[in-house]
Amino acid sequence: MSKTDPGNYFEDFRLGQVLAHATPRTLTAGDVALYTALYGPRFALFSSDEFARASGLAAAPVDPLIAFHVVFGKTVPDISLNAVANLGYAEGRFLSPVFPGDTLTATSEVIGLKENSNRKTGVVYVRTTGKNQRGETVLSYVRWVMVRKRSEAAEIAEQSTPQLASAVAASDLVLPKGLDFSGYDWTLAGAPHAFEDYAVGEKIDHVDGMAIEEAEHQMATRLYQNTAKVHFNQFERAKDPSGRRLVYGGVVISTAKALSFNGLQNAGLVLAINGGRHVNPYFAGATVFAWSEVLDKADLGACGALRLRLVATKDRPCADFPDKDSTGAYPPEVILDFDYWAAVPKRG
Amino acid sequence: MSKTDPGNYFEDFRLGQVLAHATPRTLTAGDVALYTALYGPRFALFSSDEFARASGLAAAPVDPLIAFHVVFGKTVPDISLNAVANLGYAEGRFLSPVFPGDTLTATSEVIGLKENSNRKTGVVYVRTTGKNQRGETVLSYVRWVMVRKRSEAAEIAEQSTPQLASAVAASDLVLPKGLDFSGYDWTLAGAPHAFEDYAVGEKIDHVDGMAIEEAEHQMATRLYQNTAKVHFNQFERAKDPSGRRLVYGGVVISTAKALSFNGLQNAGLVLAINGGRHVNPYFAGATVFAWSEVLDKADLGACGALRLRLVATKDRPCADFPDKDSTGAYPPEVILDFDYWAAVPKRG
Amino acid sequence: MSKTDPGNYFEDFRLGQVLAHATPRTLTAGDVALYTALYGPRFALFSSDEFARASGLAAAPVDPLIAFHVVFGKTVPDISLNAVANLGYAEGRFLSPVFPGDTLTATSEVIGLKENSNRKTGVVYVRTTGKNQRGETVLSYVRWVMVRKRSEAAEIAEQSTPQLASAVAASDLVLPKGLDFSGYDWTLAGAPHAFEDYAVGEKIDHVDGMAIEEAEHQMATRLYQNTAKVHFNQFERAKDPSGRRLVYGGVVISTAKALSFNGLQNAGLVLAINGGRHVNPYFAGATVFAWSEVLDKADLGACGALRLRLVATKDRPCADFPDKDSTGAYPPEVILDFDYWAAVPKRG
Repeated sequence: MSKTDPGNYFEDFRLGQVLAHATPRTLTAGDVALYTALYGPRFALFSSDEFARASGLAAAPVDPLIAFHVVFGKTVPDISLNAVANLGYAEGRFLSPVFPGDTLTATSEVIGLKENSNRKTGVVYVRTTGKNQRGETVLSYVRWVMVRKRSEAAEIAEQSTPQLASAVAASDLVLPKGLDFSGYDWTLAGAPHAFEDYAVGEKIDHVDGMAIEEAEHQMATRLYQNTAKVHFNQFERAKDPSGRRLVYGGVVISTAKALSFNGLQNAGLVLAINGGRHVNPYFAGATVFAWSEVLDKADLGACGALRLRLVATKDRPCADFPDKDSTGAYPPEVILDFDYWAAVPKRG
Repeated sequence: MSKTDPGNYFEDFRLGQVLAHATPRTLTAGDVALYTALYGPRFALFSSDEFARASGLAAAPVDPLIAFHVVFGKTVPDISLNAVANLGYAEGRFLSPVFPGDTLTATSEVIGLKENSNRKTGVVYVRTTGKNQRGETVLSYVRWVMVRKRSEAAEIAEQSTPQLASAVAASDLVLPKGLDFSGYDWTLAGAPHAFEDYAVGEKIDHVDGMAIEEAEHQMATRLYQNTAKVHFNQFERAKDPSGRRLVYGGVVISTAKALSFNGLQNAGLVLAINGGRHVNPYFAGATVFAWSEVLDKADLGACGALRLRLVATKDRPCADFPDKDSTGAYPPEVILDFDYWAAVPKRG
Repeated sequence: MSKTDPGNYFEDFRLGQVLAHATPRTLTAGDVALYTALYGPRFALFSSDEFARASGLAAAPVDPLIAFHVVFGKTVPDISLNAVANLGYAEGRFLSPVFPGDTLTATSEVIGLKENSNRKTGVVYVRTTGKNQRGETVLSYVRWVMVRKRSEAAEIAEQSTPQLASAVAASDLVLPKGLDFSGYDWTLAGAPHAFEDYAVGEKIDHVDGMAIEEAEHQMATRLYQNTAKVHFNQFERAKDPSGRRLVYGGVVISTAKALSFNGLQNAGLVLAINGGRHVNPYFAGATVFAWSEVLDKADLGACGALRLRLVATKDRPCADFPDKDSTGAYPPEVILDFDYWAAVPKRG
């Protein structure tokens, strides 16, 4: 038996199968500092223990995207080591905040399998769940990915494509326990824009641009213990037409999210991921820009929530909101189309 | 109303105006590890909790320059987003040590305004104050910066240029409460050179050279939540004659300070910043060298203090102490001329 | 007297001399996060406080290689500032685990001196010991290094070459106090391969490849406060035939060790370093691959131990186990030949 992990091929998956992923991970202040150094986020809730305490929490939680990246990374060896493409996300929900000191583990259930007509690949749908050391579910999301078959001849017994919600319902959003924005300090947070100030359909150019270096995306991706070889193995990537290491899509998400501070200063707390697509590859050295669109609004009582579309580009400022055309085709400079819910304080 | 922060233009500032800056920041062991990884400092007081305890402190404080960079970073969106040039520092004092777990906030008071004769720009002088979560002032410094006007026609009502001290008086230096060097371990600290061993006028070549990569200065600058676009936006910088991202001057200061260990092993603790100028731009890839000159000495009782001039160069070793000429003009390889006070133990 | 440290030349060392190295260092969660970001290790014991507690420890210890690098870094200014080449390691033993919060100091005893026949250089053998803040020895190892003489004419009084063990005896291996693998979670650890599953002579290709950037090795090496100029001073290195900064060998060791997870998932805990040679230089940008060979096995009672040979290459996959030839000569792509003992749980 080989001791080297070959990863799963499409015919290795079974509907209903549950995979327990390796390498539990304790998050620390070191992870938070690296997240700040790699993306430059400025949302006060994750930056200051004092601000978090004034918001009803015990300390500054880690940005939910850190928890997402760490959980995602654990799934790679079991789900996407033999992947051709990461196709999408849906039904992502953040159910409990993560604090430094918490330890995350992850499992995935296979909820869909669909062989492609060429019989060389198939699409695997998994619902991944991250838990903390108390067994509380921290986050849950669906991902689908195109995976190679080991053998073209292999028969796939049971196939099924899951029904996925186009967005998480506002009634399914969960706020961190104790969260209380009644004494929110708008000045320390960086802007006076409250839930009431955002309108559905509003578009915001985040103006700033940020280049990402090879060292930076590699460090980010290793930090999440994500081992997908496309991000690190330059020797192998030299044979690809691009000749370049591909940047982990999560790095683009976190960079765009950090840029979105300029216009969404009070919308740092991601509550749900409705969907997301990496519509063009991103390679190190290009400058990332971003713009957002308000898709929906929901009053959660204790605070508001905005459903936001975050679009990122490479080497293309976003003053004119570059977007897909009427056929759904994206300009080559657009690299990310990400749909999420974020909590926003109400002016009250 | 645009939700994207346009920053302040010269005509937006008023004498006496106080700006409360956004994004409080809790410093952690993660920030300290990154500071070590990015610059390689070896001063024992900041490196070892045990050494700091033997010096009368509760734990290893963070290097005062970390606190400076973090506070400086907060001021950028309000003070220097539309800056043409960062002109100088003065009257910088470190008043209380910062420990991991402390949360810093910052405010700036406009203490001077002077429009340039071209009416397109003006110089803004601010006194910036950083406080911890107990409201104690951690540091205070004056910075002046040339800022664009939004409209050339705008009238500037009240103008004034502040009187600034050429150096912080020795009697205004404040040692960390409890600091006690009576049991100082010179061997662990790395050299036997005491306050008594340094002479006014003495020059020290720090010998070592250190290259800085794009990824490194970007990570450092993001860590301080300093968003000045010249450091990150390569797409925009490609239009500049240099074609390069400009390295944040604080990265040069910290690199040169770390190099200064070789010769100033016991002068790690900065007490004051008398002045500082970034006399030529520094771009990633060049090797930084540094030399120091002892400008003054002061006996503070519990320890000594050296007033030091720290000069940094790029791709130019400092055995011959490259310096400005008699007209005050610097060779193109000199990038920093920094004047500060540091505490140094006495042999006793 | 110059205040800049010139380092020791060969004739400055004396047999039996003990050098106390500078800059005590408190390790923190920040160091652990950076280690993860720089190498991408996935061994559960160092990644999760919960997993470590289930293994009988108080919390996740730091990877023993972090302690090794930090202790090694302290020795550089005193031992190898004037070195021509780092020749080898032997008799390395990890005697007590290191946890975040522990402070390390280091001393070295000169145990061998052998002048070369050209009288320009000589080989210095030191036994270096790292201790924690309680005075407990954390690790100990022998290193030998070729050092320049200041003066060719200098006479070397007493010379001697130490007898060094070819491997640490299994009976000399020390397990962390309390270590208990009886409830080992093979799934969380990433593979079911137990001590019983490995055979002497077995070879494992670790498959994955990892490029290292200039920024990454510089950050790693600064983090260990290792100041050897070959790693940082590009201005000086431009005069070398390679024209490149040399990557610290410890970066190669840690990268190869992290890659070895794929096949040695349960062999993360290094107990001893039997030997190690950097057989060819490694420069940033090349992709590191690795393979391992099981050299020996020992049953330690509470767990097993594998004596492993870890061979790393640059830009050369290891499916065919590239190795030295019958004359002992290595192919140019092989960069590391490292011999160590690791603890491995028994199936029981």
